[in-house]
Amino acid sequence: MPYNGRRVPPTDELSRLSVILVAPRNPLNIGAAARAMSNFGFKSLRIVNPYTPSFREAKSAVGASDLLASAESFKSLAEAVEDCTLVVGTTAVRNRDLQHPIRRPEYGARMIRQRLGASKVALLFGSEKFGLSNDALSHCHWLIRIPTCDENISMNLGQAVAVCLYELIRESKVARAAKQPKLATAAEQERVTLLLLDALQTSGFLDRRHVSDADDRIRRLVRRLHLQERDAVIWLGMLRQMLWKMNQGK
Amino acid sequence: MPYNGRRVPPTDELSRLSVILVAPRNPLNIGAAARAMSNFGFKSLRIVNPYTPSFREAKSAVGASDLLASAESFKSLAEAVEDCTLVVGTTAVRNRDLQHPIRRPEYGARMIRQRLGASKVALLFGSEKFGLSNDALSHCHWLIRIPTCDENISMNLGQAVAVCLYELIRESKVARAAKQPKLATAAEQERVTLLLLDALQTSGFLDRRHVSDADDRIRRLVRRLHLQERDAVIWLGMLRQMLWKMNQGK
Repeated sequence: MPYNGRRVPPTDELSRLSVILVAPRNPLNIGAAARAMSNFGFKSLRIVNPYTPSFREAKSAVGASDLLASAESFKSLAEAVEDCTLVVGTTAVRNRDLQHPIRRPEYGARMIRQRLGASKVALLFGSEKFGLSNDALSHCHWLIRIPTCDENISMNLGQAVAVCLYELIRESKVARAAKQPKLATAAEQERVTLLLLDALQTSGFLDRRHVSDADDRIRRLVRRLHLQERDAVIWLGMLRQMLWKMNQGK
Repeated sequence: MPYNGRRVPPTDELSRLSVILVAPRNPLNIGAAARAMSNFGFKSLRIVNPYTPSFREAKSAVGASDLLASAESFKSLAEAVEDCTLVVGTTAVRNRDLQHPIRRPEYGARMIRQRLGASKVALLFGSEKFGLSNDALSHCHWLIRIPTCDENISMNLGQAVAVCLYELIRESKVARAAKQPKLATAAEQERVTLLLLDALQTSGFLDRRHVSDADDRIRRLVRRLHLQERDAVIWLGMLRQMLWKMNQGK
């Protein structure tokens, strides 16, 4: 794709990025996100639980009506990120009470670009009012925070999307990926999560710890492993065997 | 002005930049420009010949109503830039039939920041429909163009303002090391390894796979997790519980 005045990442790399809007409320913002994507050469827009199903009629999507028409709608975030090996959230808050690394846009963008060389990446934006929920955050490997000032940290959704995508295409010298091990997709990571939860339940581990968000915690724990694809297979095998053994004694 | 997580240009430098909207038509975009200014710590908004005088009521100026209320209105661009030593225009078009140098945002931003150390700078954005007129361009020393792709070069006004202002505050002399999580020591990783091996033995997993170097494989598998210190503790707890449960059935 020819960009004005410089070389950029090849089209197929850009098309491996999905912008995912989670529970957006205002169709104008969905249109604005689509327009920024179109400006910077991205193609894949996914919407999880839009507040209004009429988002495809968003008017502010100048030059991006095709993109908006081909946007995919999902009932759950898990389904929306299934084919991605890296899920990156965005947040306005600096000190979330979560164990996610928070990266500045230029550094995060570099890591995303490296990953796009080989596999799909999801970039998540939460709703205008509340940002990403803890449940949504539990699907993320790490977060990007745009350095806004303390007096007004909360950006307009369309503007936040524009800044992040600009940062992704800004650096012309694409840091080419060193040969990377093949990483587990979000779907494979979720399979490990569910089997681990099953094993923990069976073992009584969860009974002894009364926390309401055990699922989220275990999901984040598994995401922090950055599992390779072949290792995910091994973990599934190990967990299945232990689960079988635990059930033998019943 | 304290920004989250880094040092930035001093407030007085940021306040020396005036964002000037020339003949904007949509009050929503004026509000969006004000909001981005507020997000990034800029104060001075000037409007030349707004299409509607009601722009101060723009609704999308979340957290920027003060800034919007103090916006100055001018009849001519010449008056609006009077106190500035540098006037920079923005354009979506690459090859304007004009003798202006066109700079990429990061390079232009650097030049603007240098100037802000000593004097005032104007950054101009044209109307949504037509951009900056030739007359307005004639007031500019040079232009900034955001690198959009040829298929859709025209950005939404509020998003273009956000990207330019982000670029102005982006570079920080202090490339701050992202706060790293504390990683598990080799000893802690080895404790996880041994307990996992124990659990796998008990479950029968290792009996079914006749490899001579099972220990090494599992050790490498655990090393590839790059466990954080506190996660190692969690894994030890989970494995211990599963091991206990498996031994119950004996």
